[in-house]
Amino acid sequence: MTIWIDGKPFSAREGMLLDALVEAGAKVPAPCGGNGRCGKCLVRIHDAGEPTAQEIKLLNPAQIAQGWRLACKTPVCEGMRVDTPAEKTGAKIAVEGRNALYAVEPSVRVLPFALEKPHIGDQRDDARRLLEALDGAETIHPAALAKLPFALRAQDFAGEAVVCRGEVLDVIAPQQRVLGVAVDIGTTTLAAYLVDLRRGAQLASTSRLNPQKARGDDVITRCDHAKSQGVDELQKMVTSAVGDMAAQMCGQVQADAKQIYEMTIAGNTVMLHLFAGISPENIAQAPFVPVWTREMLLESAALAIALNPAAKILLLPCVAGYVGADTVAAMLSCGMHEHTETSLLIDIGTNGEIALCTGEKIYACSTAAGPAFEGAHIRCGVGSVTGAINSVKVQGEKLSYTTIGDGQPCGICGSGLVDLAAVLLAHGALDVTGMMDEEESDGALRPYFTEEGFFPAPEQQIGIVQKDIRELQLAKGAIAAGVDVLLAAAGIPVGQVDHLYLAGGFGTYMDKDSAAAIGLIPAALLKKTEAVGNAAGTGAKAVLLSAQMEAQARALARQTEYIELSARPEFQNAFMDKMMFE
Amino acid sequence: MTIWIDGKPFSAREGMLLDALVEAGAKVPAPCGGNGRCGKCLVRIHDAGEPTAQEIKLLNPAQIAQGWRLACKTPVCEGMRVDTPAEKTGAKIAVEGRNALYAVEPSVRVLPFALEKPHIGDQRDDARRLLEALDGAETIHPAALAKLPFALRAQDFAGEAVVCRGEVLDVIAPQQRVLGVAVDIGTTTLAAYLVDLRRGAQLASTSRLNPQKARGDDVITRCDHAKSQGVDELQKMVTSAVGDMAAQMCGQVQADAKQIYEMTIAGNTVMLHLFAGISPENIAQAPFVPVWTREMLLESAALAIALNPAAKILLLPCVAGYVGADTVAAMLSCGMHEHTETSLLIDIGTNGEIALCTGEKIYACSTAAGPAFEGAHIRCGVGSVTGAINSVKVQGEKLSYTTIGDGQPCGICGSGLVDLAAVLLAHGALDVTGMMDEEESDGALRPYFTEEGFFPAPEQQIGIVQKDIRELQLAKGAIAAGVDVLLAAAGIPVGQVDHLYLAGGFGTYMDKDSAAAIGLIPAALLKKTEAVGNAAGTGAKAVLLSAQMEAQARALARQTEYIELSARPEFQNAFMDKMMFE
Repeated sequence: MTIWIDGKPFSAREGMLLDALVEAGAKVPAPCGGNGRCGKCLVRIHDAGEPTAQEIKLLNPAQIAQGWRLACKTPVCEGMRVDTPAEKTGAKIAVEGRNALYAVEPSVRVLPFALEKPHIGDQRDDARRLLEALDGAETIHPAALAKLPFALRAQDFAGEAVVCRGEVLDVIAPQQRVLGVAVDIGTTTLAAYLVDLRRGAQLASTSRLNPQKARGDDVITRCDHAKSQGVDELQKMVTSAVGDMAAQMCGQVQADAKQIYEMTIAGNTVMLHLFAGISPENIAQAPFVPVWTREMLLESAALAIALNPAAKILLLPCVAGYVGADTVAAMLSCGMHEHTETSLLIDIGTNGEIALCTGEKIYACSTAAGPAFEGAHIRCGVGSVTGAINSVKVQGEKLSYTTIGDGQPCGICGSGLVDLAAVLLAHGALDVTGMMDEEESDGALRPYFTEEGFFPAPEQQIGIVQKDIRELQLAKGAIAAGVDVLLAAAGIPVGQVDHLYLAGGFGTYMDKDSAAAIGLIPAALLKKTEAVGNAAGTGAKAVLLSAQMEAQARALARQTEYIELSARPEFQNAFMDKMMFE
Repeated sequence: MTIWIDGKPFSAREGMLLDALVEAGAKVPAPCGGNGRCGKCLVRIHDAGEPTAQEIKLLNPAQIAQGWRLACKTPVCEGMRVDTPAEKTGAKIAVEGRNALYAVEPSVRVLPFALEKPHIGDQRDDARRLLEALDGAETIHPAALAKLPFALRAQDFAGEAVVCRGEVLDVIAPQQRVLGVAVDIGTTTLAAYLVDLRRGAQLASTSRLNPQKARGDDVITRCDHAKSQGVDELQKMVTSAVGDMAAQMCGQVQADAKQIYEMTIAGNTVMLHLFAGISPENIAQAPFVPVWTREMLLESAALAIALNPAAKILLLPCVAGYVGADTVAAMLSCGMHEHTETSLLIDIGTNGEIALCTGEKIYACSTAAGPAFEGAHIRCGVGSVTGAINSVKVQGEKLSYTTIGDGQPCGICGSGLVDLAAVLLAHGALDVTGMMDEEESDGALRPYFTEEGFFPAPEQQIGIVQKDIRELQLAKGAIAAGVDVLLAAAGIPVGQVDHLYLAGGFGTYMDKDSAAAIGLIPAALLKKTEAVGNAAGTGAKAVLLSAQMEAQARALARQTEYIELSARPEFQNAFMDKMMFE
């Protein structure tokens, strides 16, 4: 006989409806195996008959009134019309952050509904009719409200509601995509991820240079620009770029940006201020006070970013002016919120942010490491571009190097710089104070010395000079001193640290042995060191995919004690000390 | 000796600071008479000394740390610098709504603050610094956040915060005006009131025609227009007009629209839908379902109305498609929420809304009275314009009439129409079915009859014809039948009604005796009838000035049981009956 499943005809055999649905390929869960015990194989039957005693027990009266019945207990009959429920979100799929495990349960939820139609005896307004049928929604966004009367009537008063934090953001047809975007706004680079919020799957990712670079490479210059010219231009630059990236990723997977309901944003404190259109200028000068650090929820419409008109933009919480939401997100993605062990996180960019979690307390600081590892202020320094020398080795008597993408050597990036210094040190060409000395170096390096310095790629005139070593000393000294001060503040000897996480591109690609050799990271932690990639982006994604991770991010930011290094004389001492090569 | 009060020098005598402040004319309350008991004479003293035991008891530690002290217990000393607190809102000034009394305690509050300045040992962000000093504020609006770092530093970290529903909307200098606007959006007329939210005083008012009249006179035509053309144009018309009216009133009192922090809006359900940009089209056809009826809080920025960028726009709650927020506001202003007696409210416009409060329950309905009382469909009908015949009398044998503004007669407005019908009836010229009959009329009226009808202003050819009487019968019959059905639903005999409130311009100006004579209002309630003017506007103002009245409006809307007359056969019977002239 013919029955209608979700509006499509299907030729069913006699028996129970559940079997027919399985045969038709409809997705109806039946964990109890069709024995009428679990109440999960719910379907909506048009003109449903009286419920069974079992159904009265397992379903609520509204469900029964709306025609929901157990498929396993309903016999198939000719011409019956059946609607299967929309696919549910909230399935407990474990997704791996770097070290953190969490269930995919985003703040954005999809709730199916099937409403009684209005008639002269039931004149409830559309909003009330919908809200009374949804569990956990109290209000409706004005944009969703404007769409509501049309959507309900076009869909015959059934469909799905996209709900976020108790507010209905949209009313959609089943199967419509429900998407989210996680963004990491770096001073140099923007990274974004497009995620399916129903399933937790990443659909696309993209990155590009932060267009604000046209207004300065580092946060101080951006702050100064904001102070003299206002924040509008800088804000527009980054919000347009982020909107663009969202649109671009949607294009890649044939999605519509209107299907994006939430965007989570990690980034340092200055970047988040500029994104929100709030002047960061007081962060640039003592006492380095930001305007706000708490998590902030914005309307995408207010920022003129073209997502769903009701979409939310969540700026992750920061800790202080120089320990931002990127560090919080990185801590989160390393699972530091659930650590009982002691762990250390170092994120080296223009500044070096360091966080120490003792299992009981969390400390964080920021060191003005300077952009040496990003290639700035280094004679032949470049970023991670094709042709950058990214590793240098001596095997036997032979010095060799590699370049990114095997390109013609065009400069030295951060990991190459660290390797070069380690090679010079290992072969006697650097003394403890950082003086370069050809005379003391062994034979392997000699051929590459010139009067100016050490040139492993002499043909391209690529090498390092004494001043570069000084820049490196300042940078590595600041980071190592920051680690020292944090450990001292916590009263933890370095040997007791169980994990050292290196976040960011530089942390991922640099050679750990070289880093330990030059004293950038504690040699004692070499075996406990793990590169965690773009941990800030991973953390932003975790917050997008899990309301619980969002709560953890808030807790992490609140619990973290910020250590202002400039107020600590012991930092200056440690800094002087750590600039040396042991 | 010289002391500094709020930055101004004052030559003070020895003694207690409170006396010096009183002499200087500063407003410092001292309900206990300066005996150190009430803790109300708080002032902030720069470099304040140790607190007294009394101060430790009466003040909280943060206040003490910020230098707040009791003026009555502080001796004057040379060069001392004193800040008096900003004037507080929330004073219990009784303001008369029509019948309701309430204290001026708006949702928009002004909270003074004086913050510790940031230093390297206290790097709290600006937002946290402010929020920790404010009682009852948890968040800061993004627009206020953008202004915050500048305002705090320009005002030396002291000033006032404008707070609404737990959110800081602005940070201002003391004495800046804090304003609100209440609006009643009528289908025909817009009325607005500018109010000082610190004091509760009305500063200005204005009214104009609803520009949507260009798209139809009644709500049905507007709904049809919205259905065929979309709501954008109709929304823009009304929001621009409302923004204009706010700016115009600000101009009258040299205020800035940026000083407006809240706007409350009453209006019928269709008007509120259009204001919010939501299609009311389903209200126009059975089963007359609105999109939403609950109170709605919008951002002024989202509606592009130029108030303070953080200002809120509160749409009052409606009951049903044809019992709107205007009726709720009118009930509120009549104090029906606190009545223990039985009261009836009739608001006659294009529709006639009727509400009945029994002291226990509230019932409301709407009758399609038609726009006869506004002059539409009446041969010589006009609105309340100069020259409109607004009252008609027979004294002895002499018929006389008056016109609005003593102008040359140009037509007949609603109250004139009611008077004319009453005169015709009293003098035998109308039978019980509403047939006009010159033959039966007595001598006083004879001279004004023509073949067409009855013309009290024959020179100007102004009068009424049989068809006009029929329109009047339909209108008054609908209202009287609505009253009947409500009373029957509540099981209340008409004699038990204690108050009859007539809302709106027509209700205010019509002659009650005439209205009773033609059966528009129950004759039994003549002595209990009171005209309450623009009760909807008064109610909107009450909600603006009192958070408690806002809660009452919500409760009223929720408690009111809507009676759909079209679903009640007894309405049709009553309607047929009430069209007659007894």
